[in-house]
Amino acid sequence: MDKDNLSVVLHSPGDLRLVLLQMHSVGICGSDVHYWQHGRIGSFEVKKPMVLGHEAAGRIVKVGSEVKHLKAGDRVAVEPGVPREMDEFFKTGHYNLSPTIFFCATPPDDGNLCRYYTHNANFCYKLPDSVTFEEGALIEPLSVGIYACQRGGVSLGSTVLICGAGPIGLVCLLVAKAMGASQVAITDLSAERLAMAKELGADLPLQVKRGDAPEELARNVGSQAHVTIECTGVESSIQTAIYATRPGGVVVMVGLGSEMVTIPLLSAAVREVDIRGVFRYRNTWPMAIAMLASKQVNVKPLVTHRFSLEQAVQAFETTRQGLGVKVMLKCDPKDQNP
Amino acid sequence: MDKDNLSVVLHSPGDLRLVLLQMHSVGICGSDVHYWQHGRIGSFEVKKPMVLGHEAAGRIVKVGSEVKHLKAGDRVAVEPGVPREMDEFFKTGHYNLSPTIFFCATPPDDGNLCRYYTHNANFCYKLPDSVTFEEGALIEPLSVGIYACQRGGVSLGSTVLICGAGPIGLVCLLVAKAMGASQVAITDLSAERLAMAKELGADLPLQVKRGDAPEELARNVGSQAHVTIECTGVESSIQTAIYATRPGGVVVMVGLGSEMVTIPLLSAAVREVDIRGVFRYRNTWPMAIAMLASKQVNVKPLVTHRFSLEQAVQAFETTRQGLGVKVMLKCDPKDQNP
Amino acid sequence: MDKDNLSVVLHSPGDLRLVLLQMHSVGICGSDVHYWQHGRIGSFEVKKPMVLGHEAAGRIVKVGSEVKHLKAGDRVAVEPGVPREMDEFFKTGHYNLSPTIFFCATPPDDGNLCRYYTHNANFCYKLPDSVTFEEGALIEPLSVGIYACQRGGVSLGSTVLICGAGPIGLVCLLVAKAMGASQVAITDLSAERLAMAKELGADLPLQVKRGDAPEELARNVGSQAHVTIECTGVESSIQTAIYATRPGGVVVMVGLGSEMVTIPLLSAAVREVDIRGVFRYRNTWPMAIAMLASKQVNVKPLVTHRFSLEQAVQAFETTRQGLGVKVMLKCDPKDQNP
Amino acid sequence: MDKDNLSVVLHSPGDLRLVLLQMHSVGICGSDVHYWQHGRIGSFEVKKPMVLGHEAAGRIVKVGSEVKHLKAGDRVAVEPGVPREMDEFFKTGHYNLSPTIFFCATPPDDGNLCRYYTHNANFCYKLPDSVTFEEGALIEPLSVGIYACQRGGVSLGSTVLICGAGPIGLVCLLVAKAMGASQVAITDLSAERLAMAKELGADLPLQVKRGDAPEELARNVGSQAHVTIECTGVESSIQTAIYATRPGGVVVMVGLGSEMVTIPLLSAAVREVDIRGVFRYRNTWPMAIAMLASKQVNVKPLVTHRFSLEQAVQAFETTRQGLGVKVMLKCDPKDQNP
Repeated sequence: MDKDNLSVVLHSPGDLRLVLLQMHSVGICGSDVHYWQHGRIGSFEVKKPMVLGHEAAGRIVKVGSEVKHLKAGDRVAVEPGVPREMDEFFKTGHYNLSPTIFFCATPPDDGNLCRYYTHNANFCYKLPDSVTFEEGALIEPLSVGIYACQRGGVSLGSTVLICGAGPIGLVCLLVAKAMGASQVAITDLSAERLAMAKELGADLPLQVKRGDAPEELARNVGSQAHVTIECTGVESSIQTAIYATRPGGVVVMVGLGSEMVTIPLLSAAVREVDIRGVFRYRNTWPMAIAMLASKQVNVKPLVTHRFSLEQAVQAFETTRQGLGVKVMLKCDPKDQNP
Repeated sequence: MDKDNLSVVLHSPGDLRLVLLQMHSVGICGSDVHYWQHGRIGSFEVKKPMVLGHEAAGRIVKVGSEVKHLKAGDRVAVEPGVPREMDEFFKTGHYNLSPTIFFCATPPDDGNLCRYYTHNANFCYKLPDSVTFEEGALIEPLSVGIYACQRGGVSLGSTVLICGAGPIGLVCLLVAKAMGASQVAITDLSAERLAMAKELGADLPLQVKRGDAPEELARNVGSQAHVTIECTGVESSIQTAIYATRPGGVVVMVGLGSEMVTIPLLSAAVREVDIRGVFRYRNTWPMAIAMLASKQVNVKPLVTHRFSLEQAVQAFETTRQGLGVKVMLKCDPKDQNP
Repeated sequence: MDKDNLSVVLHSPGDLRLVLLQMHSVGICGSDVHYWQHGRIGSFEVKKPMVLGHEAAGRIVKVGSEVKHLKAGDRVAVEPGVPREMDEFFKTGHYNLSPTIFFCATPPDDGNLCRYYTHNANFCYKLPDSVTFEEGALIEPLSVGIYACQRGGVSLGSTVLICGAGPIGLVCLLVAKAMGASQVAITDLSAERLAMAKELGADLPLQVKRGDAPEELARNVGSQAHVTIECTGVESSIQTAIYATRPGGVVVMVGLGSEMVTIPLLSAAVREVDIRGVFRYRNTWPMAIAMLASKQVNVKPLVTHRFSLEQAVQAFETTRQGLGVKVMLKCDPKDQNP
Repeated sequence: MDKDNLSVVLHSPGDLRLVLLQMHSVGICGSDVHYWQHGRIGSFEVKKPMVLGHEAAGRIVKVGSEVKHLKAGDRVAVEPGVPREMDEFFKTGHYNLSPTIFFCATPPDDGNLCRYYTHNANFCYKLPDSVTFEEGALIEPLSVGIYACQRGGVSLGSTVLICGAGPIGLVCLLVAKAMGASQVAITDLSAERLAMAKELGADLPLQVKRGDAPEELARNVGSQAHVTIECTGVESSIQTAIYATRPGGVVVMVGLGSEMVTIPLLSAAVREVDIRGVFRYRNTWPMAIAMLASKQVNVKPLVTHRFSLEQAVQAFETTRQGLGVKVMLKCDPKDQNP
């Protein structure tokens, strides 16, 4: 969208609560790459050209007439999901489950990987000076970690197992530690990713390989996790997650795999190991900003690559190849700082 | 055990908190029949003769020296599970998950289907005059229903789906209604069982047949259950349970089937349908007695057959054939009343 | 407001989600009488003429262009509180705590005791045919009871004490029973009110008199309540509520009295008796409608007086004198049925 | 008790689960000093000589025949409260509320400030090599902080206010930070104590003085605490705590003062600020040990004074004068190390 068109957009009644943003930093997510490469994820199909990007921060250029808490010049992080209806899910605080929710870069809704972008002001959160735009953009993946740890009930002294040391596994690790977990084990196929996990605070990095027996793997990590956060979506890893969790514990399903999965449900049921999914997140931006501002979590090491918006294809290619952790696209040609 | 041996038993140090009971009514559970017919359930194997029975009520004959809250003559209901160790599970109120728990008629622990039986006094609960022995015995299956509904979070205005209208499905129905569920649907293969469910208060009895497609069945019940209680353990029924539950809802796994089950885990995860198992129950006797005393639930219609202890084989045969709902064995030759 | 003005109202942008209602039944609340008599409650002051009424049901005459779930002719119950901003309270499901919330008949916001009234469609709930308009209007006080019982954690087998048998005490009684409370005691100064409470299901009506010693009163009701719901706001009654609640229990503060109150806080603290307030309610209409439709609660006996809108002064006078339980004003001259 | 008497003690039946400990480090608590100086706290009265001390760690000398998880030589921390009866509180995980609980140095029960001491093995927790005896002894006050933060629901991004920077206020601070609080404000009369608080991580130390107006103080800290932990028991501080907490927040009552207190209960109730007490703690030792072993909390700076057992009077005098933070008594003449 061009900046000159802004006035038009803000004329329509629903737009009184919109803000126009000049985008600064947008991270690339695995789902962005998946839509680019395959045109669909599950039942979400790209049927017409769609702007990608949903991990974003920018600066406010203009605000709708009903917007009170933000003004031009404010630096904000963007929560990409905005409920469209005030339905029962929204009213009870579960707006992420609202079936008609708008979500950046989930077809057919456009994302925010662009120069200028409009968004509902209520889902833009002002960043304090001490928090960079990139930290602001990283609140989106951090939110996945926060919500996963909340759903799992991670708390003081928790023993946590994280399956998968990709970007999401790593933010789960950071959050679990910040919530007081005393021991975090993390598994991955890649020694390199585990080394990164160790640097970020993992107590027990554990390299696995395809074909490992789930029950044996579970024994290797002690089968005593209060909370296991499954970030791979791979069937054998889900099985390991269940076996590795202690009676009364929780397995959080973050990674998405096949629709039908074969799992040791009896073992989960009789040991009261709860299986809980997460659909994105809700109400995480304010606490994420509080954590970043108070330096309780440090997400900066997650950014391993930066590209200008003109280099977008190269940036996406980098993510597709699984290089580094998080690739940032810098949308403001005049400010490529973090 | 013979009454004359009581003194011997109560001499050993651990017995100071035991009571000797003259058993009155003991219900037969599907698991009793399973041990009788197959000698094992999962990893629990009957390796030597074992007394069956764990749904029981009786009268106190003698109490150990440290027992204060009970006395000879008291009528009590017996909670069959008694934790052996004061471990972390017990201390946090999850004693049902304690790995060393004693449990009546789970090998190698003897049950209470006999004339005289000793039990830990702390797991015997005094019945008020208005509650019959049979109601006391029925607190055990009722507890399964209470705990399942608690784990599912059934509350005022809940829409509940129960898969399976056997004895456990029926107690779940009674409890769900007593907790304020506004609509309870229940499925079964048998029209007869569903007729019983309807009599007990089911709003929507739904006859299913083998081979029904889970997603279609789910649509037929509206796919809007806040809580689904799965009491069959059958794979297709578990699948139906997941599809039939609304986003943010809960599936409670009560029925036990195969160790490995194939389920639509992705559908559960992205809709945040939690999957929670139950292992028996905990802390349900006091509230069950309160409910029975105040006539808030009526379990009496569940008893469809009665046999004297001498007719035990016939009683077990009746349960094995699936006749009626609950078969009671009357252990006191001088009092065969309810 | 006159019906002819509707088009004007629906022209302003915010009105796309409004509905125009022809009001049918509006109950009178103690707060309505208080504003009428004293012009203020706490810091809420009536500074200009204000329409009273916030317990209401009516029929939809016209809907805004964005309203999808309702249409002209629908019979609806009106939730009087509508959050004005999508703030953190709203997003987390606590919209009743949003500081800028609109609320019928809380100054300066007009209520709905009139012939025609416009309201946000998202806070109008369609009534099934089996639920009368008056039942719809009674959902408002019923919601106070539902929310109080929820905040108190009333559940299966709970022992509940309710202080005060006025309209709110009575709805708390109805709801507590519907949620599975096994014993409900209720106190009041008036024998007549207690007789009504007994009819509605109270197990232990207890007449109190001014000057009774709180600790003694507490002993009289057994000091064993899991949940005590204080509906009087009177200091001595609050003290009784604390003493009467068992360790680990909850006192819910529903009645509003003086700003500063002297209470046995030490007794509450060391016995971990939580003190929880309620500010109106949230998310109660859908479950209330479900309960009314399924006949799980019966609120009809609460309506003891009916007046036409022309007789409003007489109706208010009746409430002011504390006659009966609930006074209904019938706003539709052509339909004065329940 | 003399070591030679051990065999006698372990002969009595209840003693099969006891262990004999050689005490190493015992901290002095304000309540110890209070019993020493005044002979009573509330209804707990010292009627005969009583051993003081309940913050303790030592080494196991001998174990009862039923003790499996500990052996001679093990270093352990002692949880001073041991429930005597398996009542409803214990079974539901609320053993701290059991009315007949044994508690070290609460009359008439003896404490553990001595050379040799016997205790129930189930309430002795093995210390890993990396955790010192003094850290083990400090688990008792740390548990107060853990339990207070748990009851308050401190979590990721919480804004916390702590009233009082004495030893308990300081452990609450440490725990709140470890649980993810993003901002912790703390008040005290003493600048010295606040300096210590700042060193330990407080974000906003705030010196108060007698006579400060509660509402004004609350405004000074922003009136936006999610959780306020009141550790003084002083009426005006309790009032400040309520005013300073945001709608929907929690005030935790840790400090104990007068039985009757005057508070702005209306302000708490209509803003749904819950008031929750704590009675000691429950189930905190395992997580405290996990936190100490993983270096997630550092309690070592809390020990400001050490005395040999022979210098006990001087040690008590030091605590009575409010010098330093925590005074440790070293009970093992051959090992006075931390």
